[in-house]
Amino acid sequence: MPHIALAEYLEQRRALVDRALDSRLPDTDTPPQRVHDAMRYAALSAGKRLRPVLVLAVSDLAGTPLERVMDAACAVEFVHAASLVLDDLPSMDNAILRRECPCTHIKYGEATAILAAMGLIALAFDLVAHNAEMFGCGGAASPAVRHLAHAVGTGGLVAGQHADLDLTDRAVSLDELEYTHHQKAGALFLASVQVPAYLVGLPPDEIQVLESYARYMGLAFQITDDVLDSHCDHEDVGKSTFASHLGVEGARSKVADLIAAATSVLEPFGDRAETLRDLAEHVRTRTA
Amino acid sequence: MPHIALAEYLEQRRALVDRALDSRLPDTDTPPQRVHDAMRYAALSAGKRLRPVLVLAVSDLAGTPLERVMDAACAVEFVHAASLVLDDLPSMDNAILRRECPCTHIKYGEATAILAAMGLIALAFDLVAHNAEMFGCGGAASPAVRHLAHAVGTGGLVAGQHADLDLTDRAVSLDELEYTHHQKAGALFLASVQVPAYLVGLPPDEIQVLESYARYMGLAFQITDDVLDSHCDHEDVGKSTFASHLGVEGARSKVADLIAAATSVLEPFGDRAETLRDLAEHVRTRTA
Repeated sequence: MPHIALAEYLEQRRALVDRALDSRLPDTDTPPQRVHDAMRYAALSAGKRLRPVLVLAVSDLAGTPLERVMDAACAVEFVHAASLVLDDLPSMDNAILRRECPCTHIKYGEATAILAAMGLIALAFDLVAHNAEMFGCGGAASPAVRHLAHAVGTGGLVAGQHADLDLTDRAVSLDELEYTHHQKAGALFLASVQVPAYLVGLPPDEIQVLESYARYMGLAFQITDDVLDSHCDHEDVGKSTFASHLGVEGARSKVADLIAAATSVLEPFGDRAETLRDLAEHVRTRTA
Repeated sequence: MPHIALAEYLEQRRALVDRALDSRLPDTDTPPQRVHDAMRYAALSAGKRLRPVLVLAVSDLAGTPLERVMDAACAVEFVHAASLVLDDLPSMDNAILRRECPCTHIKYGEATAILAAMGLIALAFDLVAHNAEMFGCGGAASPAVRHLAHAVGTGGLVAGQHADLDLTDRAVSLDELEYTHHQKAGALFLASVQVPAYLVGLPPDEIQVLESYARYMGLAFQITDDVLDSHCDHEDVGKSTFASHLGVEGARSKVADLIAAATSVLEPFGDRAETLRDLAEHVRTRTA
């Protein structure tokens, strides 16, 4: 897909996801209003929505309507939003701003922020189970829920966040950095293909291919984040990153390799994987 | 069941649950070790295990082996443990001790405590989905997961904890207090009958009866907690409780009414509900 068409396509999908997120979030008229407000603030703030767009691309691969996986798409974004709320807490990264807006705990207080994160996680599991109930292929609910649980728990985001607490102001090997980022970002990329793959009933060999693709994509995405951050005035000065390890050019070259690998594993799918290939291309060329 | 036999029966079930909890918790040899340590500390500390024992009693009602619901029994206890970790945080109740031991955030630091709570919640969803996969009646996974999600989210624990933040140092009506405790404790009691009921495949009318029973039990349990706490030197001096509203005798009499109601709704079950009736009797007479 040419660059402009790709940008338009991503914008359309993002708008579709944003409407779905809004419709799945609880109303701020019903109690606990303040927590619902904070959940909306955290989940509807500006974002690339790359994980839910990845969920939708798996539906494209299967040739099913997007509605078949839309709850799951919202679920992975809610988990992502919850993880950012927790990352920013005073006891974690102690951030004030995220994407130039006050962090959720700055705006709503720490207790409400923690409860909003918990509310988003619970909503995510509810949505995946609901998705399986409404549209899932037989027996999809258990593996779909379990893969999301692994992405959240101590094999995923929790492990990544814990390792991340330990990356500042000390020498960190590249392997250690890869482990941290694999857990922290990679686990949710992985779930973003696994959950919809079970929901639409893809066969095990195709799920394996998607898992390889998601592993490459997750790491590539994280490295591009580091490279983009290295151009900014950045608070995390003492922090070990891919850009500080490999240099900007080295990091770019690693991203190119990872994206080539991600694209290459998709070959058996032929044209069915068009949107998955487009997303890989987007990660390679992204500038924000 | 006579009082001594009831105590023995509860002790046996508690021991069974403790072994199951231990076997489901992640190993402290695998990373993230410190989070796994904190999860074990939070979940294996002394406790009545009343919620998992309730899950097992639903299996008794259905006449199924306890193994059929044991993962779910662990799941509700892990959610309960996570909620206590969060309750105690500096931004919430700011507690130092729980049951005479240092709170999880005191022993492991706040960041690790929050991550341990998140890890326990993720593990709980994994276990319920696993339980459904292994032993569940067809289609049990989705409703089982969804009922647990409701108990955790802004219709349950999150709402209760948020309302609870607001109960100190101001006049609180009895209705408001009941709402808070219904969300905070009641929601997980409710899930403790709903989740196993779907797993063992009870019919809808029987699930409704169990839900009524659980609502009475949850509130009765919370009031007995208040009464027992009112005998201690207590930190939460300005805090509105059932004991402060109704007086100790009034609270006891309300508990007796609730337990009578809980026992009464079980009548259609006849002898099948023996252990559920025993648990009600235990809540009425408990001294710790």
